[in-house]
Amino acid sequence: MNKEILKDFIQRVWNEGDISAISEYLADSYHVMHDPGDPWNGMTLDVAGFQNRVSISRAPVPDQRFEIQSLFENEDSVCMTWLWKGTHLGEIAGIPPTGKTLHMSGATVYFFENNKISGHWQVADRLSIFQQLQANRSQ
Amino acid sequence: MNKEILKDFIQRVWNEGDISAISEYLADSYHVMHDPGDPWNGMTLDVAGFQNRVSISRAPVPDQRFEIQSLFENEDSVCMTWLWKGTHLGEIAGIPPTGKTLHMSGATVYFFENNKISGHWQVADRLSIFQQLQANRSQ
Repeated sequence: MNKEILKDFIQRVWNEGDISAISEYLADSYHVMHDPGDPWNGMTLDVAGFQNRVSISRAPVPDQRFEIQSLFENEDSVCMTWLWKGTHLGEIAGIPPTGKTLHMSGATVYFFENNKISGHWQVADRLSIFQQLQANRSQ
Repeated sequence: MNKEILKDFIQRVWNEGDISAISEYLADSYHVMHDPGDPWNGMTLDVAGFQNRVSISRAPVPDQRFEIQSLFENEDSVCMTWLWKGTHLGEIAGIPPTGKTLHMSGATVYFFENNKISGHWQVADRLSIFQQLQANRSQ
């Protein structure tokens, strides 16, 4: 069941950018346990804080899409491996928009409490994004 | 059961560097399905090829250890999230050894055929390693 909840959450919140849907999925307190390179790494967020994170994260790549590769479910957590792509239309890490498509991949463990998402542990292939940004800038 | 096999494989092969044990765990053909930044990304390896990969990968960080964070099992695959650390004692990407401890994290889906490991899909936080190497070099 948590698998299905997570699929809906990714589609509505991260792919479609519907931040008003976040309150349906989030626990009262959301902990970014491990997410190296993410500005919110280590923080505990409420719904408003998570809405802010999604808005800021999606702004430079507004057509971004997570394509789920596989889902694994344990009792209180779901692990999702994913591909991601989107068009670079806003500044990222000081690099102005290039209009190029960016590609990334990653894996995220989402933790659940009573079928609400209470945090994540994530690794993303940020070196590829860094290299794509550098390559696009120098063209 | 595949979870237990994987734990033994990680301990003996990757942590202890016992490449003679690889033949006990590997299928005849091992496919590196997705591993951005890994020199063997996309390749299909036999046991000798995999032994070569482990030897070359471990050489600059011979005391390296994977610490398993979580394991998830589906029918024919196991997903493992991990922390990694080791001492930088050999050249990596042209950067001479610094003697510093390197830290990395990642997630790997291992695929099984008849309880033998036939490939993996992996993402590692290589940007952190790149940043640690740059920082250590400039000290």
